[in-house]
Amino acid sequence: MTPKVAQFLADRQPATPCLVVDVDRVAERYNALLDALPLARIYYAVKANPAAPILRRLVSLGSSFDAASWEEVQLCLAAGADSSAISFGNTIKKASAIAAAFEAGVDMFAFDSDEELEKLARHAPGSRVYCRLLVENTGADWPLSRKFGTTLAHARVLMLRARDLGLDPYGLSFHVGSQQTSTEAYEAAIGKVAMLFTDLSAAGLDLRMVNLGGGFPTRYRDDVPEIDDFARAIGRAMTAGFGNALPEMIVEPGRFVVADAGVVQSEVVLVSRRGHGDDQDRVRWVYLDIGRFGGLAETEGESIRYRIRTPHDGGEMGPVSIAGPTCDGADIMYERSNYRLPTALRDGDRVELLDTGAYVSTYCATGFNGFAPIGEHYI
Amino acid sequence: MTPKVAQFLADRQPATPCLVVDVDRVAERYNALLDALPLARIYYAVKANPAAPILRRLVSLGSSFDAASWEEVQLCLAAGADSSAISFGNTIKKASAIAAAFEAGVDMFAFDSDEELEKLARHAPGSRVYCRLLVENTGADWPLSRKFGTTLAHARVLMLRARDLGLDPYGLSFHVGSQQTSTEAYEAAIGKVAMLFTDLSAAGLDLRMVNLGGGFPTRYRDDVPEIDDFARAIGRAMTAGFGNALPEMIVEPGRFVVADAGVVQSEVVLVSRRGHGDDQDRVRWVYLDIGRFGGLAETEGESIRYRIRTPHDGGEMGPVSIAGPTCDGADIMYERSNYRLPTALRDGDRVELLDTGAYVSTYCATGFNGFAPIGEHYI
Repeated sequence: MTPKVAQFLADRQPATPCLVVDVDRVAERYNALLDALPLARIYYAVKANPAAPILRRLVSLGSSFDAASWEEVQLCLAAGADSSAISFGNTIKKASAIAAAFEAGVDMFAFDSDEELEKLARHAPGSRVYCRLLVENTGADWPLSRKFGTTLAHARVLMLRARDLGLDPYGLSFHVGSQQTSTEAYEAAIGKVAMLFTDLSAAGLDLRMVNLGGGFPTRYRDDVPEIDDFARAIGRAMTAGFGNALPEMIVEPGRFVVADAGVVQSEVVLVSRRGHGDDQDRVRWVYLDIGRFGGLAETEGESIRYRIRTPHDGGEMGPVSIAGPTCDGADIMYERSNYRLPTALRDGDRVELLDTGAYVSTYCATGFNGFAPIGEHYI
Repeated sequence: MTPKVAQFLADRQPATPCLVVDVDRVAERYNALLDALPLARIYYAVKANPAAPILRRLVSLGSSFDAASWEEVQLCLAAGADSSAISFGNTIKKASAIAAAFEAGVDMFAFDSDEELEKLARHAPGSRVYCRLLVENTGADWPLSRKFGTTLAHARVLMLRARDLGLDPYGLSFHVGSQQTSTEAYEAAIGKVAMLFTDLSAAGLDLRMVNLGGGFPTRYRDDVPEIDDFARAIGRAMTAGFGNALPEMIVEPGRFVVADAGVVQSEVVLVSRRGHGDDQDRVRWVYLDIGRFGGLAETEGESIRYRIRTPHDGGEMGPVSIAGPTCDGADIMYERSNYRLPTALRDGDRVELLDTGAYVSTYCATGFNGFAPIGEHYI
């Protein structure tokens, strides 16, 4: 938690649950990534947190943007981004969304299938297109599954077809999975990309860009490698794959840029110890006024394990299960991750969930169980 | 899909994704439940769908309401419900929410812990309280876990304590899990409740109410027992447990009342067949403009399996995976449930997800990936 956020919480005592984001910290993280990867252009993944103050700050720093929808394209434009700095990075787009973005000046689009390529040729003629490869997500806390990406062999066919359709076969992308904690995932993926570059070059098609995706991790409860470790691994792999003929490099960080700039403050609704008549009796249940459907969607499967601060830190601790405030039995954040909280914790206490600037506000349900969406403060 | 919904979709071609609910059908389902369980009072579980037209219709039919939050209490009052017809059924409540509801005239509250009971005694003195028992959720497609309810032994202590605290020890509740497809779950739970009634009566405390919770299933893809089957099982168990001295009975249906009154219409964004180089090649990926974060949260773990209608029904079918429109790899509805859809299905086609009146609109995220919340039409 940055001093500015701590001060804001102390002074304002905002209604809970709320998310407070230090926009200066966002800028620091953006610059740290720029330092670590000076050869890469940064396309901020808007989906991580599309708040206007964040987008405006990133525009002022010269960032580009990775938009998941026509609506996100509009948010970037409204924040002052130039359409040439926007990539429409979702491989699943309505024809109307492609046409609207193209009309607004966006000329860079992702795809991973014949069908999407046809749509791009029709609704965004001549645009730069890049094909997403399916790569291993081993090591990622929030893997991206088989939903996206295609094989090397299919990507080869698709890129040649893109040229035939009058599109600009710009490059290749991959995504190693969100909150990726292994540098090797990037190295393996870059190796595949380099192979396809060489292969297509032999077929008379010279690609110009490698999109490394996002995935750079934030330190939640467990330590993660430093960004410099990722940068070194990426540099090594790029040199091994491309020698001196380095293509343009793009990264699409979301979590890395905004996660640790944000803090969720929540009120404890209930701490109970229920007589289930078994070993679990000693485990208290702590119910917060935010849960899986109030923004903490990434606690599904206990994937993302946030650090939690309480007013009683330093005192005696005991095991807890942690759940949200709704009547939904699935609204449990942590039952198996060995969380411990102070035994002095009581209902009415305010607690902080740290590093929650990314993937919280937008996952929040509109009104599940009647609860209003999380309050947001950008300072 | 009721004729009225079909007509509305044909005439209006509303923007997708949207939810269309036939409020007359809600009334039919309410009356069907009343017919099946004439001795029970119906407390509609507002969380299933809190839309004002639904609440107003149910008020006009004489329904009572199960509210999960102070916000839901307010929705009921705004729809014309009398405060005496509202139960605050969440066992996890902020002190301020209890006080506000009590102030508004609500005098019936759920609890399952010492800590919550203390809060009720302080902020809703003299109110009717009922203790939630932990019962087996076997047979439920959306089980409610260990988050709620306590043991018989603990409930006994709590009910006696409620009396000592000046509260009105009204009764006991349980919940067999949502979309419960086994009638036996109710019978077993009623047996436990009856035992505790007898036991407390011997201790000088006569309880007056049994709250059977909800859980009555809707027919999605698979057949489920009829409501009459549940009613007969409940009647048998109540007679076996209580003889002629039947206590007041309460049920809290949500899904049963509203699910099959609603239809989600969605647009196909992309149908692709990607060259993953394995058996999965023959499986098409169908991406809709609604997914797990756009309202179909109950497809988590493929728990609730909706029926899907397309304009090509009757033609050749083939296996599909079905996913939402976001860049999130977790936004997949069905990958392992052997869904098949027509091979003629194309992007731009409108499809209907049937029986989606419950637990859709309110789970919907505020703006994940930039997508606006689902449109809602109550007709």
